[in-house]
Amino acid sequence: MDPDRLRDLLEGVAARRVEVEDAIGELRDLPFRALGFANVDTHRHLRTGFPEVVLGEGKTPEQIVAILLELAKGGSTVLATRVSPEAAAIVCAAVPRARHLAIPRALVVGPTPAPDRGRGTIAVVSAGTADVPVAEEAALTAELAGNHVERVFDVGVAGIHRLIAHRAVIERAEITIVVAGMEGALPSVVAGLFGRPVIAVPTSVGYGASLGGVAALLAMLTSCAAGVSVVNIDNGFGAGQLAAMLNRKRAP
Amino acid sequence: MDPDRLRDLLEGVAARRVEVEDAIGELRDLPFRALGFANVDTHRHLRTGFPEVVLGEGKTPEQIVAILLELAKGGSTVLATRVSPEAAAIVCAAVPRARHLAIPRALVVGPTPAPDRGRGTIAVVSAGTADVPVAEEAALTAELAGNHVERVFDVGVAGIHRLIAHRAVIERAEITIVVAGMEGALPSVVAGLFGRPVIAVPTSVGYGASLGGVAALLAMLTSCAAGVSVVNIDNGFGAGQLAAMLNRKRAP
Amino acid sequence: MDPDRLRDLLEGVAARRVEVEDAIGELRDLPFRALGFANVDTHRHLRTGFPEVVLGEGKTPEQIVAILLELAKGGSTVLATRVSPEAAAIVCAAVPRARHLAIPRALVVGPTPAPDRGRGTIAVVSAGTADVPVAEEAALTAELAGNHVERVFDVGVAGIHRLIAHRAVIERAEITIVVAGMEGALPSVVAGLFGRPVIAVPTSVGYGASLGGVAALLAMLTSCAAGVSVVNIDNGFGAGQLAAMLNRKRAP
Amino acid sequence: MDPDRLRDLLEGVAARRVEVEDAIGELRDLPFRALGFANVDTHRHLRTGFPEVVLGEGKTPEQIVAILLELAKGGSTVLATRVSPEAAAIVCAAVPRARHLAIPRALVVGPTPAPDRGRGTIAVVSAGTADVPVAEEAALTAELAGNHVERVFDVGVAGIHRLIAHRAVIERAEITIVVAGMEGALPSVVAGLFGRPVIAVPTSVGYGASLGGVAALLAMLTSCAAGVSVVNIDNGFGAGQLAAMLNRKRAP
Amino acid sequence: MDPDRLRDLLEGVAARRVEVEDAIGELRDLPFRALGFANVDTHRHLRTGFPEVVLGEGKTPEQIVAILLELAKGGSTVLATRVSPEAAAIVCAAVPRARHLAIPRALVVGPTPAPDRGRGTIAVVSAGTADVPVAEEAALTAELAGNHVERVFDVGVAGIHRLIAHRAVIERAEITIVVAGMEGALPSVVAGLFGRPVIAVPTSVGYGASLGGVAALLAMLTSCAAGVSVVNIDNGFGAGQLAAMLNRKRAP
Amino acid sequence: MDPDRLRDLLEGVAARRVEVEDAIGELRDLPFRALGFANVDTHRHLRTGFPEVVLGEGKTPEQIVAILLELAKGGSTVLATRVSPEAAAIVCAAVPRARHLAIPRALVVGPTPAPDRGRGTIAVVSAGTADVPVAEEAALTAELAGNHVERVFDVGVAGIHRLIAHRAVIERAEITIVVAGMEGALPSVVAGLFGRPVIAVPTSVGYGASLGGVAALLAMLTSCAAGVSVVNIDNGFGAGQLAAMLNRKRAP
Amino acid sequence: MDPDRLRDLLEGVAARRVEVEDAIGELRDLPFRALGFANVDTHRHLRTGFPEVVLGEGKTPEQIVAILLELAKGGSTVLATRVSPEAAAIVCAAVPRARHLAIPRALVVGPTPAPDRGRGTIAVVSAGTADVPVAEEAALTAELAGNHVERVFDVGVAGIHRLIAHRAVIERAEITIVVAGMEGALPSVVAGLFGRPVIAVPTSVGYGASLGGVAALLAMLTSCAAGVSVVNIDNGFGAGQLAAMLNRKRAP
Amino acid sequence: MDPDRLRDLLEGVAARRVEVEDAIGELRDLPFRALGFANVDTHRHLRTGFPEVVLGEGKTPEQIVAILLELAKGGSTVLATRVSPEAAAIVCAAVPRARHLAIPRALVVGPTPAPDRGRGTIAVVSAGTADVPVAEEAALTAELAGNHVERVFDVGVAGIHRLIAHRAVIERAEITIVVAGMEGALPSVVAGLFGRPVIAVPTSVGYGASLGGVAALLAMLTSCAAGVSVVNIDNGFGAGQLAAMLNRKRAP
Repeated sequence: MDPDRLRDLLEGVAARRVEVEDAIGELRDLPFRALGFANVDTHRHLRTGFPEVVLGEGKTPEQIVAILLELAKGGSTVLATRVSPEAAAIVCAAVPRARHLAIPRALVVGPTPAPDRGRGTIAVVSAGTADVPVAEEAALTAELAGNHVERVFDVGVAGIHRLIAHRAVIERAEITIVVAGMEGALPSVVAGLFGRPVIAVPTSVGYGASLGGVAALLAMLTSCAAGVSVVNIDNGFGAGQLAAMLNRKRAP
Repeated sequence: MDPDRLRDLLEGVAARRVEVEDAIGELRDLPFRALGFANVDTHRHLRTGFPEVVLGEGKTPEQIVAILLELAKGGSTVLATRVSPEAAAIVCAAVPRARHLAIPRALVVGPTPAPDRGRGTIAVVSAGTADVPVAEEAALTAELAGNHVERVFDVGVAGIHRLIAHRAVIERAEITIVVAGMEGALPSVVAGLFGRPVIAVPTSVGYGASLGGVAALLAMLTSCAAGVSVVNIDNGFGAGQLAAMLNRKRAP
Repeated sequence: MDPDRLRDLLEGVAARRVEVEDAIGELRDLPFRALGFANVDTHRHLRTGFPEVVLGEGKTPEQIVAILLELAKGGSTVLATRVSPEAAAIVCAAVPRARHLAIPRALVVGPTPAPDRGRGTIAVVSAGTADVPVAEEAALTAELAGNHVERVFDVGVAGIHRLIAHRAVIERAEITIVVAGMEGALPSVVAGLFGRPVIAVPTSVGYGASLGGVAALLAMLTSCAAGVSVVNIDNGFGAGQLAAMLNRKRAP
Repeated sequence: MDPDRLRDLLEGVAARRVEVEDAIGELRDLPFRALGFANVDTHRHLRTGFPEVVLGEGKTPEQIVAILLELAKGGSTVLATRVSPEAAAIVCAAVPRARHLAIPRALVVGPTPAPDRGRGTIAVVSAGTADVPVAEEAALTAELAGNHVERVFDVGVAGIHRLIAHRAVIERAEITIVVAGMEGALPSVVAGLFGRPVIAVPTSVGYGASLGGVAALLAMLTSCAAGVSVVNIDNGFGAGQLAAMLNRKRAP
Repeated sequence: MDPDRLRDLLEGVAARRVEVEDAIGELRDLPFRALGFANVDTHRHLRTGFPEVVLGEGKTPEQIVAILLELAKGGSTVLATRVSPEAAAIVCAAVPRARHLAIPRALVVGPTPAPDRGRGTIAVVSAGTADVPVAEEAALTAELAGNHVERVFDVGVAGIHRLIAHRAVIERAEITIVVAGMEGALPSVVAGLFGRPVIAVPTSVGYGASLGGVAALLAMLTSCAAGVSVVNIDNGFGAGQLAAMLNRKRAP
Repeated sequence: MDPDRLRDLLEGVAARRVEVEDAIGELRDLPFRALGFANVDTHRHLRTGFPEVVLGEGKTPEQIVAILLELAKGGSTVLATRVSPEAAAIVCAAVPRARHLAIPRALVVGPTPAPDRGRGTIAVVSAGTADVPVAEEAALTAELAGNHVERVFDVGVAGIHRLIAHRAVIERAEITIVVAGMEGALPSVVAGLFGRPVIAVPTSVGYGASLGGVAALLAMLTSCAAGVSVVNIDNGFGAGQLAAMLNRKRAP
Repeated sequence: MDPDRLRDLLEGVAARRVEVEDAIGELRDLPFRALGFANVDTHRHLRTGFPEVVLGEGKTPEQIVAILLELAKGGSTVLATRVSPEAAAIVCAAVPRARHLAIPRALVVGPTPAPDRGRGTIAVVSAGTADVPVAEEAALTAELAGNHVERVFDVGVAGIHRLIAHRAVIERAEITIVVAGMEGALPSVVAGLFGRPVIAVPTSVGYGASLGGVAALLAMLTSCAAGVSVVNIDNGFGAGQLAAMLNRKRAP
Repeated sequence: MDPDRLRDLLEGVAARRVEVEDAIGELRDLPFRALGFANVDTHRHLRTGFPEVVLGEGKTPEQIVAILLELAKGGSTVLATRVSPEAAAIVCAAVPRARHLAIPRALVVGPTPAPDRGRGTIAVVSAGTADVPVAEEAALTAELAGNHVERVFDVGVAGIHRLIAHRAVIERAEITIVVAGMEGALPSVVAGLFGRPVIAVPTSVGYGASLGGVAALLAMLTSCAAGVSVVNIDNGFGAGQLAAMLNRKRAP
């Protein structure tokens, strides 16, 4: 509550234009609103420019159905991540307008917004075919937040020339998400070649010394290239969300 | 700000008894006071029943002197932990009334309060002689918070009969702090024998597979005995502080 | 055996009031009783104020049935933790008065005692919905030990204002259990805001760098807030049991 | 080399306006320039908007002097990080215009540019006093890249109300760097409260279970709040550099 | 081949008592026999005093059947460890005289030898009921090697008085195997109380910070008691085998 | 593009023998060809002397079928690794000439080339029977690349004399692959005995402290013998491929 | 207190031969003596057949002097382990009869007993020269406990034939201690070749992936050879003590 | 001893041409020579084509002097690795012809052999300036073994075009050693670009999440490129030695 609004209210009370009870009503949950972020909760997606999201993993199809139906009431687009094909079939039968996207293992209810909320494009680059589900989760997330996404997939370290072939995509992007498992070298290579900021997403692709993605995670954290920051293993959603936040146009 | 107080204020405004500017003044930093914990900062030691504390590690003697002089102004007792003997000598020469306690590697400025703030006694039990500095840090911390502390030192797992000899100390204690390095078995033994709550403090005493205290830490976390919770490795201060909080008399 | 009792016995022998054989009978298992904790075993639940408990995990339904029937003979309330829904159905059909509590994955045989054994209330706070089973296990455990429990669920770090909304619950509690997975920040926040002792329970909720709960565990152990101690990952039962021990009224 | 430029060249050759030898000269290191990033090396700081930087750690003062003198020849501002006080004294005596900044343990040669290269401000938030050197390294790095930096220091989890007091700083920042050791909870709290993107920097502040900063690192990677990405432990420089890249104005 | 035997052979050649071809025959695989351990392979069980053993884990029932039939031809007793109940049923139907021992998850073909090969008895002590399968595997292994084994099960750290009740078993044993999971404290307690050598077997019993038995393993390795050595997690077989080797009577 | 070719082209343009458009056509994708490794992609198997390979793990049988059919079109031999028996059956029914090799869990389409591409033989040595699948994967890989492979299996550390029996195999090999799980000692023993280069392959065979192959991996990395290098856990394919590269005849 | 002795005492009381006060005196510390191991403490070295021992590491020379003088009063031989050369010089000047043994970094006060307490000899085998200090600590410890020790040093895995040359030493030993760092393969090799029980001592010799001895520790724990058990990293003393316990003659 | 030689000897005995005692003399240490690798020890450097080597780390200058003088007697070139500058100065003053090579921290006694023992050249590639000492140790080692070495230093991932500039060096090399710390991506890039076998050497360069070189080690082990194998962290010597073994000309 900014001072002007407070003054107006109190002057209204003083002038008997505003009833005491109404003023109390407006002020009584001030502790919450006073925090200045009370609207986080009620209008979260307005602030973050992002749809509602449900983590499908660890939930029964019935639970996902119930949550999607509830969230979709508000009219906003809803995203459910990490949904198995079996669960997706059950949910799609029960939730109107639910779409199943097999590769990013996601369900979407509601329209994909026009890609007009970003300052620029978001590039999503991935190393191997096994990294594609995580890369697609990142891309989908960014698209649902109203961004224009360009994908450059399957450009492992053994195919750097292919990366160069797509250099225009990365150079024009506002932010680039780079998804890689195994030795996790690709974010270093991309950041080193293009000098543009990179959100690195390690994946759990690999075996043995990849330690479930820890090898890629450590490699990305210790990158010698400028402009690399890292999110959790397999966290395509988080990378897409962060990219959307970084790409969002701000009010002047 | 409770509703009655708010109504009074607004009615005062409505009745012109209270000026709008004064009401704004009272309400404007409501965001902070509304949190209900704004007083945490200014009256912290009243709430926690604990003196000011300074972590000596990583500070120069000059920095410790400056902080102690500042904190001691308020008149409350001040504790500096993890102070090397060399630093202690410099500080004691510069800070009036500073006392150096060599074994817990601590400096105290101001009096030790009477041990009358606790519901009962606090027992501090330690395994080996190398664990004593951490145990003494815990004991000192609890004493400075106004507790009566009883020490049972050097009762390793190989000397369980000695533990039994001091069973009265543990049985009458409100809470028992158990300090041990190496395999960290003592908290399990104490909790198993006496059925009383234990704050376990792993120490970095040991070598090789003790991994700097991690072996003891894991052992304490996986204790099969009821009533064991754990603090960080070598964190005698934290254990003493928690014991003091648990032992504190509450207002009726 | 206290000295007075021993003197009485020996004077009885000297006075021929006590037969030598009877005195031998009384003294012969002195080694055990002399330990002063021989009664641990036979009267364990009297001492700990806690019902019998069975870890369901790793046991067949048949084994659980057998143990519950045996323990329930004594008339005390019995708790079985970590029981799968399938096992619960089988057990409930076989054990009279067994109740299945789905969310904490528990079985209870016998009545829940009146919440009159504690000095105060116990608060149980949890971060995300996925942490609720562990939080409910803690709450149930404390309730079965005769405590009044108040729950504040779903107050993740992104919703601190909601935590503040329930601050009265935490401030009046004798002890607060805080359950959180992922980054495990909630215990620090609760302890920092309210200055009250916290039993922190890390959960295995999360993926990738959460390392099965180790990330949350380490975060809680290294908390910079006063008054935080930690139990094992997912150990809601242990936290509830410790809270009950800390909250128990002691004989004057 | 874009097609138009190539056609011009070849038509020049065809028209005898361009000598074959000259065309060969222009084309012969095409492999490099053709990569489109050959200018990375020669014009690196133009592209990244960042001064030259030297990692002081592991170098002798003499080596630092030599490198600084060489780099400063180009006229650009030069930053040396992780320079000990002893080395700094030697270097400052030998390198004209070198300034020693004790808290971020840095040396700067050349002017700090005007803070006019960023789209907005960069906020740097830190938890404890021991985290300040890393936070200052981040802030200095961003300032040397031409950004306006606002600092909010010493706002640990136990002092969230102070964070709220400075909320305007964070809300107006284009990007916020959050620096914290121990349990590393602050980035989650900041991102959760303000809904703005955060670069999280774990520090090695702490002992025992903090495992040299790994506890904070894992906590930040597993943050449940939206918009958090992470750099290496103690990598204030990397965070400042990334923030500068994200805040840089792009050509229309 | 000892020198005397060699001289005899050569003198036989010189005296034409031995044909050159026969001497070559005797000497030609000297490289193997010369090693002095060539008989390891062919007479292994004579040397180790132990039956043939098959690790059942990771083998199909058909493979186990084939190996057991082959090994049993030699007439010696054969032990298969880590055999699932399903596999055991199939194997028992196909292999004559095969016995399934459910608790140690083992199959035995052939008689259990008389317990007359050891210098003394072997004690097997275990902590919780979940540790019994590993303890029984150790006991069975030692018994099949001809030892007299005495079991003391379910003597966790919370029941030390019960351990004392069975002290005669441990004191008379030549060697004691102690099996424990979770915090792994029991070997320290046994070795500390009785001053007798202990083979410690950590088990994977536990969850969370027990890290699949690593917590118990580290605790046992860092035991402060004299006389404790450690084998791999869940390696009851190895402990039984080592105990049998240590207890074996040696030829005078 | 070498300078002479470039001069020719330009002189052709100057002499009007070459049209500008044709010269542009030749030069325009120079960036790729200029790299000098553009042929990597199109002629990869010519350069590496190795067939196409598909990682079967994590792919559906249908995906494997599709990829094999596509790759087999080129006429080169194709290898699919880590294919389950179930998937193999489906694939063999759908892909002409596909052969299933059960022990190395592989599928091969196309002929095994004559073993004439190597400078010498490749030896594959393995420790236990459980290591054989990985060893066979290495051997198969090398054979498909045209090498003569000699196998020495089941020569654990307890059977060193058997290793010696086959020493001729190792001594004549150009390179030796040594596969071992558990303590991973065999590569050290082989390299120590024979002084020949060893590619060490740790396997995930083992339990408990073998940590999924990490124990063997660390042992191999810290080998005190000369000439040992290491690949990832269970990476028989990688070892075979590297051995083939090292053994390949080079053009004079 | 055995029943007969108790009956005598009570009958003495009944017959007035024993005063009640005397009986109380005899019985009053029964809790301790009743444990049956009260003599552990007072007669520890009789039971373990071992001299007093002091861990020198972490103690000042003055502390070592004080403890040695105190312990030496009892007349038994005293061993101080992990004493630096500097401390040793100071201690030797202050403690009569103290001898400094540089290689095992030990101090001994009092005579080395005749090697007549063991059933047989103890072999100590070590891999590299850097492992010798730990091996010598083990050997010295066993010798001070009255054992005949035979050393076989510098027999790394690359020199197995030298191990074979000394096979008689190992074959006649009652127990063999094997000390090795780096990949820790030697215990497996020794146990595999000779079929005799081995106490394995990993050392911290090595760098990088040896992780301070953890690589060797894991390798030894996962040994595929029969008869290997393991003590803590660098714990030569513990191995020597255990070997002495295992080799001790027992009363008939 | 081959059969023919044995027959000759025995026929000599039969024909009385050879004395029995002489034959015994020839045969009596047959166990060793029979192993076929007895010459490893006495003629080690002939077999491995490598000079004598001393690990300087952990040795006093006096010890290094003694060993170098002894080894140099044989006339072969001797290499001491990991020698500090202080130790080097002392050693050079005492050992004739000893040369100190500061960057690889090595001492060499005796001439560098002509680079004529290899089939081809060895390339040594390193990422950052801090990796140079390890890279130089590898290069020096290979040179002392008679190889022609070509260095390509300072080609981090951010400067891939520079790597391409030196591609001829790598393409003509028989084997390439790639040295990198931090994220350890360079071996993947080199192997991916050039399709040639790579010995990867992780270095301990880095901080925080580089975990002393473990991050680079894991990255190299999980490389997705063909032909990469790995040695221990900072093990330039081992890489050089292996490269020399792989490059060695074999007798036809």
